[in-house]
Amino acid sequence: MSKLDFPSTYRSPETSRLEYFYDRPGTMPGQLHLSEDAPPAELVSIDYDRDSFSRTIIKDPETINEYLKTHTVSWIDVLGLGNNATWEALGSIFNLHQMLVEDIVNVPQRPKVEDYQDQLLIIATMVILNPDRNGFVKEQVSLVLGKNYLLTVQEEPEQDCFHGVRKRIELDRGIVRKQGADYLAYCLLDAIVDGFFPVLEYYGELIEELENEVITRPTRSTLEKIYKIRRELLTIRRAIWPQRDAINSLIRDGSDLISNDVQVYLRDCYDHTVQVMDMVETYRELATGLMDVYLSAVSNKMNEIMKLLTVVSAIFIPLTFIAGVYGMNFDRSKSPLNMPELGWYWGYPFCLALMGITAGSLVFFFWKRGWFKSVI
Amino acid sequence: MSKLDFPSTYRSPETSRLEYFYDRPGTMPGQLHLSEDAPPAELVSIDYDRDSFSRTIIKDPETINEYLKTHTVSWIDVLGLGNNATWEALGSIFNLHQMLVEDIVNVPQRPKVEDYQDQLLIIATMVILNPDRNGFVKEQVSLVLGKNYLLTVQEEPEQDCFHGVRKRIELDRGIVRKQGADYLAYCLLDAIVDGFFPVLEYYGELIEELENEVITRPTRSTLEKIYKIRRELLTIRRAIWPQRDAINSLIRDGSDLISNDVQVYLRDCYDHTVQVMDMVETYRELATGLMDVYLSAVSNKMNEIMKLLTVVSAIFIPLTFIAGVYGMNFDRSKSPLNMPELGWYWGYPFCLALMGITAGSLVFFFWKRGWFKSVI
Amino acid sequence: MSKLDFPSTYRSPETSRLEYFYDRPGTMPGQLHLSEDAPPAELVSIDYDRDSFSRTIIKDPETINEYLKTHTVSWIDVLGLGNNATWEALGSIFNLHQMLVEDIVNVPQRPKVEDYQDQLLIIATMVILNPDRNGFVKEQVSLVLGKNYLLTVQEEPEQDCFHGVRKRIELDRGIVRKQGADYLAYCLLDAIVDGFFPVLEYYGELIEELENEVITRPTRSTLEKIYKIRRELLTIRRAIWPQRDAINSLIRDGSDLISNDVQVYLRDCYDHTVQVMDMVETYRELATGLMDVYLSAVSNKMNEIMKLLTVVSAIFIPLTFIAGVYGMNFDRSKSPLNMPELGWYWGYPFCLALMGITAGSLVFFFWKRGWFKSVI
Amino acid sequence: MSKLDFPSTYRSPETSRLEYFYDRPGTMPGQLHLSEDAPPAELVSIDYDRDSFSRTIIKDPETINEYLKTHTVSWIDVLGLGNNATWEALGSIFNLHQMLVEDIVNVPQRPKVEDYQDQLLIIATMVILNPDRNGFVKEQVSLVLGKNYLLTVQEEPEQDCFHGVRKRIELDRGIVRKQGADYLAYCLLDAIVDGFFPVLEYYGELIEELENEVITRPTRSTLEKIYKIRRELLTIRRAIWPQRDAINSLIRDGSDLISNDVQVYLRDCYDHTVQVMDMVETYRELATGLMDVYLSAVSNKMNEIMKLLTVVSAIFIPLTFIAGVYGMNFDRSKSPLNMPELGWYWGYPFCLALMGITAGSLVFFFWKRGWFKSVI
Amino acid sequence: MSKLDFPSTYRSPETSRLEYFYDRPGTMPGQLHLSEDAPPAELVSIDYDRDSFSRTIIKDPETINEYLKTHTVSWIDVLGLGNNATWEALGSIFNLHQMLVEDIVNVPQRPKVEDYQDQLLIIATMVILNPDRNGFVKEQVSLVLGKNYLLTVQEEPEQDCFHGVRKRIELDRGIVRKQGADYLAYCLLDAIVDGFFPVLEYYGELIEELENEVITRPTRSTLEKIYKIRRELLTIRRAIWPQRDAINSLIRDGSDLISNDVQVYLRDCYDHTVQVMDMVETYRELATGLMDVYLSAVSNKMNEIMKLLTVVSAIFIPLTFIAGVYGMNFDRSKSPLNMPELGWYWGYPFCLALMGITAGSLVFFFWKRGWFKSVI
Repeated sequence: MSKLDFPSTYRSPETSRLEYFYDRPGTMPGQLHLSEDAPPAELVSIDYDRDSFSRTIIKDPETINEYLKTHTVSWIDVLGLGNNATWEALGSIFNLHQMLVEDIVNVPQRPKVEDYQDQLLIIATMVILNPDRNGFVKEQVSLVLGKNYLLTVQEEPEQDCFHGVRKRIELDRGIVRKQGADYLAYCLLDAIVDGFFPVLEYYGELIEELENEVITRPTRSTLEKIYKIRRELLTIRRAIWPQRDAINSLIRDGSDLISNDVQVYLRDCYDHTVQVMDMVETYRELATGLMDVYLSAVSNKMNEIMKLLTVVSAIFIPLTFIAGVYGMNFDRSKSPLNMPELGWYWGYPFCLALMGITAGSLVFFFWKRGWFKSVI
Repeated sequence: MSKLDFPSTYRSPETSRLEYFYDRPGTMPGQLHLSEDAPPAELVSIDYDRDSFSRTIIKDPETINEYLKTHTVSWIDVLGLGNNATWEALGSIFNLHQMLVEDIVNVPQRPKVEDYQDQLLIIATMVILNPDRNGFVKEQVSLVLGKNYLLTVQEEPEQDCFHGVRKRIELDRGIVRKQGADYLAYCLLDAIVDGFFPVLEYYGELIEELENEVITRPTRSTLEKIYKIRRELLTIRRAIWPQRDAINSLIRDGSDLISNDVQVYLRDCYDHTVQVMDMVETYRELATGLMDVYLSAVSNKMNEIMKLLTVVSAIFIPLTFIAGVYGMNFDRSKSPLNMPELGWYWGYPFCLALMGITAGSLVFFFWKRGWFKSVI
Repeated sequence: MSKLDFPSTYRSPETSRLEYFYDRPGTMPGQLHLSEDAPPAELVSIDYDRDSFSRTIIKDPETINEYLKTHTVSWIDVLGLGNNATWEALGSIFNLHQMLVEDIVNVPQRPKVEDYQDQLLIIATMVILNPDRNGFVKEQVSLVLGKNYLLTVQEEPEQDCFHGVRKRIELDRGIVRKQGADYLAYCLLDAIVDGFFPVLEYYGELIEELENEVITRPTRSTLEKIYKIRRELLTIRRAIWPQRDAINSLIRDGSDLISNDVQVYLRDCYDHTVQVMDMVETYRELATGLMDVYLSAVSNKMNEIMKLLTVVSAIFIPLTFIAGVYGMNFDRSKSPLNMPELGWYWGYPFCLALMGITAGSLVFFFWKRGWFKSVI
Repeated sequence: MSKLDFPSTYRSPETSRLEYFYDRPGTMPGQLHLSEDAPPAELVSIDYDRDSFSRTIIKDPETINEYLKTHTVSWIDVLGLGNNATWEALGSIFNLHQMLVEDIVNVPQRPKVEDYQDQLLIIATMVILNPDRNGFVKEQVSLVLGKNYLLTVQEEPEQDCFHGVRKRIELDRGIVRKQGADYLAYCLLDAIVDGFFPVLEYYGELIEELENEVITRPTRSTLEKIYKIRRELLTIRRAIWPQRDAINSLIRDGSDLISNDVQVYLRDCYDHTVQVMDMVETYRELATGLMDVYLSAVSNKMNEIMKLLTVVSAIFIPLTFIAGVYGMNFDRSKSPLNMPELGWYWGYPFCLALMGITAGSLVFFFWKRGWFKSVI
Repeated sequence: MSKLDFPSTYRSPETSRLEYFYDRPGTMPGQLHLSEDAPPAELVSIDYDRDSFSRTIIKDPETINEYLKTHTVSWIDVLGLGNNATWEALGSIFNLHQMLVEDIVNVPQRPKVEDYQDQLLIIATMVILNPDRNGFVKEQVSLVLGKNYLLTVQEEPEQDCFHGVRKRIELDRGIVRKQGADYLAYCLLDAIVDGFFPVLEYYGELIEELENEVITRPTRSTLEKIYKIRRELLTIRRAIWPQRDAINSLIRDGSDLISNDVQVYLRDCYDHTVQVMDMVETYRELATGLMDVYLSAVSNKMNEIMKLLTVVSAIFIPLTFIAGVYGMNFDRSKSPLNMPELGWYWGYPFCLALMGITAGSLVFFFWKRGWFKSVI
């Protein structure tokens, strides 16, 4: 079970549409889906204790063994998923279980915590607000916590939210240098959870903007925006929900690898996760409410359109009828009964007055019912 | 862990939009977000037992140590979040854990109870009905309960709902002077929970008003009001829900710091929290129901508008057609078949009668179906 | 803790709008909200065992002590909430805890069961169908069960549902005279729960009536009725839900005051509560469904109105156009091309035929699509 | 507690509207609601073991005692609820608790299992598809399981679903003759649960039919049908939900009266109950979805009606206007500017051409936007 | 209990409409519903250990006994449900409980795990994406896990998703040849769960397509598609939900038949099941959201239609009225007041100008309100 076999496979492009990674039916469990010609992952080792600090880019994985022996805490940061060679090397150095490696490599997985006796695997999802503010990117971060080391694997090496932690270690701020690998794992988890807040803040602003838009000028694009927000909040929810369970199981089940001191900190991290979930649920409820409001606002608008049509029709159709009557050609020479009005001295003024009175009373009728207010 | 380091940071304005406080990604856990130039918090000590009572504004925090030794119960009320100096002083006097101080200072946090061996941290949310009746303000109140002291921290010192408790202590009403700090904590929690009721009462009235408005005269602003109420009830719900969990965990998990006598009182406080939640859920259901009613009422109104349009159109369009027919210019001199009606002696009266009968039967048709009732 | 202090307060009228009683922020816990000038409550004692029965109106509360000593089961029925004097007397006779009295007096409270060592407080909600069938009234009934006595307090003394129980005791029907105070408490609880059924029956009938109305002739008042039912079912639900929890906790937690025999009966009472809840939920679902049906029915009706308008317009507008064409005044003397139809021998009949064919084919078109069925 | 008293009461007709039986407020617990002049129930005894079988219609209940002593398994089937005399006899023969008899007689009750030391009361609901396929009938079946006997009571003796079980016993098919009364009880429960499937199948078909109807030709009666299905599925759900709980509690809590072998069979019966619930929930979701589809389809249809109206109006109204212009009577003799078109040689053809071009471009405009597709 | 009796019955065609198999009321529990003239099932035995591998098509079921004795792991794959003869033979060879065989044969059953002391029955549902991409097919797979054998039964032998597992065993890839029958069972379960992903991927694509369609061009067929997706996701959900419970109970309850090593793998399989459920729920929420969007989009479209109608009507109806006025025939010779405009020199130009100004200001009015944007 300790030896890993890496058949040459590739990560099929069609998996991108799905939320989670899946083995195409027929593939073996524990198989790594990595492209053979992918570059090896870049390895960065940060090694520290109370008094010393070193940051090294590792060329030959074998040198990691040295770090594991000499320093108190070794943080091996794997940037990118690497290739099979990477994992053959890391697998034997850290003695990783086949299923553990599979969960790290076959991304994305659902956040979870798994206990492999002397190692703890923590799968987390990191979200990063996109700089051009058009949404966010999601990325899996895997943490393998051992006695005096922490192995972290990031899907996309370009950006992460661990910058603050690295600086704190280097400058010896806070208590991170005085604590073990478990505290480091907590710091990273905390940074990941804190990364959700700016994303939520962005959606909070979006919803606030939409609240105005939906009532005052609902258009087709409003609808699209509401739907998009609902969809993306669903994605965030799916990322944070299992994360909460994972952190909770860390606290509840305990582990020899996590000291009591760090438990207190994890409790704080758990609170933050609950706060994120709280906000996601709130925003989801608001977005659902907005959809209701949208539907009502569209109906409202239709009412106003209909009112306008009705006012115009109801006023002019009777008038047109009157004009039509006096446009008839009954032969006045044949009978005094045939349209005598046409021959009256006051015929035309009488007719205009009739029209005026008709229009006036209709306008009055609509004005009384307050239709002009909302129409014009 | 006992020493606190306070880097100079400021509370960024953009956090105001969010429900909860969050560390900007990259900041250290346990860091206090206080402006360096903020004034120190005002400290008020109320010190009492069965026989004595003193109320002092504390200038030098070190004097608190005296109060902690001499009197039975010391209530240190911190008005405002203060600055780093405030917390350095209080932290060493009360021997506060770094994470505890962070939860107090980095507001708002989710209500919760945390047990720090010889101290109990209770985070609660206080809501106060706005005097100009346009909603409510929300504020975090933190309680640190020790053996013979209670440290309370209020976000906004201008207003609170502890006035009644202070008066009771001073005038020795009820049993508060005969009990310990745990009873005092209960009194304050009870006052906080009772503060939700006037706010809910306000929303109850609002909903009652809207119930009339939504059925008789639904307008765009009705929609806005319903949405606003739903949104604000969501906020109250988010405040009271964790508060219930917190008080429940106080009762269930027990603590050496809370006597059995006070447990009975806490049970009553828990009942009140459940009542608040009950009412919030009820109001939320009513508000959701109102949205349905609104949509139906708008559709109803459209029906009436359409009926009016249809009645007017259906009556006058056929009449206009008849008038149009007799306005045609067929040459009667060319053929006796060309519009002989125009030459009849009773031509015009016959035509008017035709119109009258047409209109009459249409009116009868609509009257039978009851359209006039709802239209006019 | 045994001494009660009753400050003179009054029950503020503005609390009536709220579902539950609440202390105005600033008041003391355990304070009774009774008007100083309220009359003392009327006390009725029913005292019985296997062989004896007496029913007395008690003038001087002190005489209760006699009843408590001599007879097996003493049922003290307090009609009305009384004043402070009433509770000072009762408090010392029955040795009532301050919080227990508060729950009895500061109505309404949420139904619950609380264990005070040698006393069991049961708060229940009684609903009584209004005789003029316009809804129901809600009232709190509090039961204090002791070893050989039962103290009951009713908010409104005018009406209750205990008549049957009183008669059964007096006439020695059933086993009530052979059992203790716990069986009496069960009988009263059972009568309270049974009181929900006629109210639900009333709403069942209302819903059945509305089902017809909503599909055949939906009007604005239908909407109001549906909303009213939803609102009132919400009230009943809020009354019965905690009642179930209360009775369940009686069964589950047990108590020395309740014998095993009575447990069997309570199980039956619990079943009835679940049945009430079941029906309330069903009615609520039906009412929600009715709202959907209403919205659909209104849309349906609009469709029919629109169809009528469209049929009338589509038939007459083309006809009016034809009439309009032959009403034009082109100068036939100037050109043989100018409206030669007007000079034809069969001109007018041709024109009428054209109109007839046009109208006929439109009517056929609409008839084929089945529009006349739903319109006329 | 063993003696039953049966006051002469009758089952009031107005209870029929309610889902569950309830005592009118004021009646005694444990009272049987049976008409005094009801005929006694018919009793059928089926008595069998491995080798013998007898089926007897019992005239004198006292003879049951004989059956209880001599044969291994005695199934006493009570057809109809009988009268007080029936239950006085059965009560003393089987030594039935007052509350047990009440649950059997005061139908309908919620399905449940109750343990009376040496007897197990199982209340179940049987549904039978109505032969004329217009719904289903619901009936309570009560089973009292003793050591070597099973007493079953059916509300309506005309129809049941136990025919198969009776035949199996008589013909000695399967293992029923080799097992005890507990296996017989299982067989009956299984038959009851299996009886739900044909009813659900019927509703499955109804929903499938409605799916077509709702999209292609939604009418008012479609709406009524959807609502009816929702309502009846609610009834089935209310019948099967507590049945599942009842069977589950049989398995979970165990009982001396049920052997381990029969437990395996009950597990299978439980699975069937869950399947029924599964299907009910699915159908309910489908019916709710259908309501949404209905609303959308009605809106869709209105769109098409409006399109037709708009097409007709938009094409003919401008044409009518043109005709109206050339129907004006400006005096051409007074001024060459007054409607010179009327005197043109090509005046009328020009006018017709203008109309043709106008109509043509409007038709093109609507055709381009695809309106004709959906309208005609 | 070990002997099986197989009465000749047939699987009624009308059960196909139902989700689950059910005994027609009146049939015996444990009876197999197989057609007497059905062909016997094809049996394939795959027999392997570390060093050997054989694949045999079994003619005479009795030879299975040989396989069970000689080889380490025997996988007996039963293709098709077979007939009574098949199950009589298999029943006696594997010593199968009557209820176990019933669950295998009377398909479909709800996924579940049942423990028969020395055998574990696992019922699973396999979904296979239909090659012509018009949905998926569902099939029951039953696994009977013994000490050194695995019996699998497939409803439809034509297609399964076990191809990959067979190849892995034959080519000795991975660790399957080094593990027992429990690992083989895990491999098959994993293959079944992985089979859900392509189906979900298909629905994910469908939803993505619909998202565009619903906003830009909502038609009646869009509605049908959304409803179809909702319905089919409901089916998938009903298949995966109990599967999760089944696998969870395998992990939680354990079994002597499953080694600790395989438990680790089952945990992974469980994770995949949760991921499937997660995605199904997400897609269901999206589909529900799409229905809301559809309704809003249809309303939106109606608004645009109404706007067009209103614009056309509001502009031309007043113009037609003006034309009507000057088409009246008042006798100008009788009075100078009768339509003097007709005799003006600038009469006609004035009239046209009046019409132009009227039309122009109406167009301006609508243009200002932005109606032309959305209409044309």
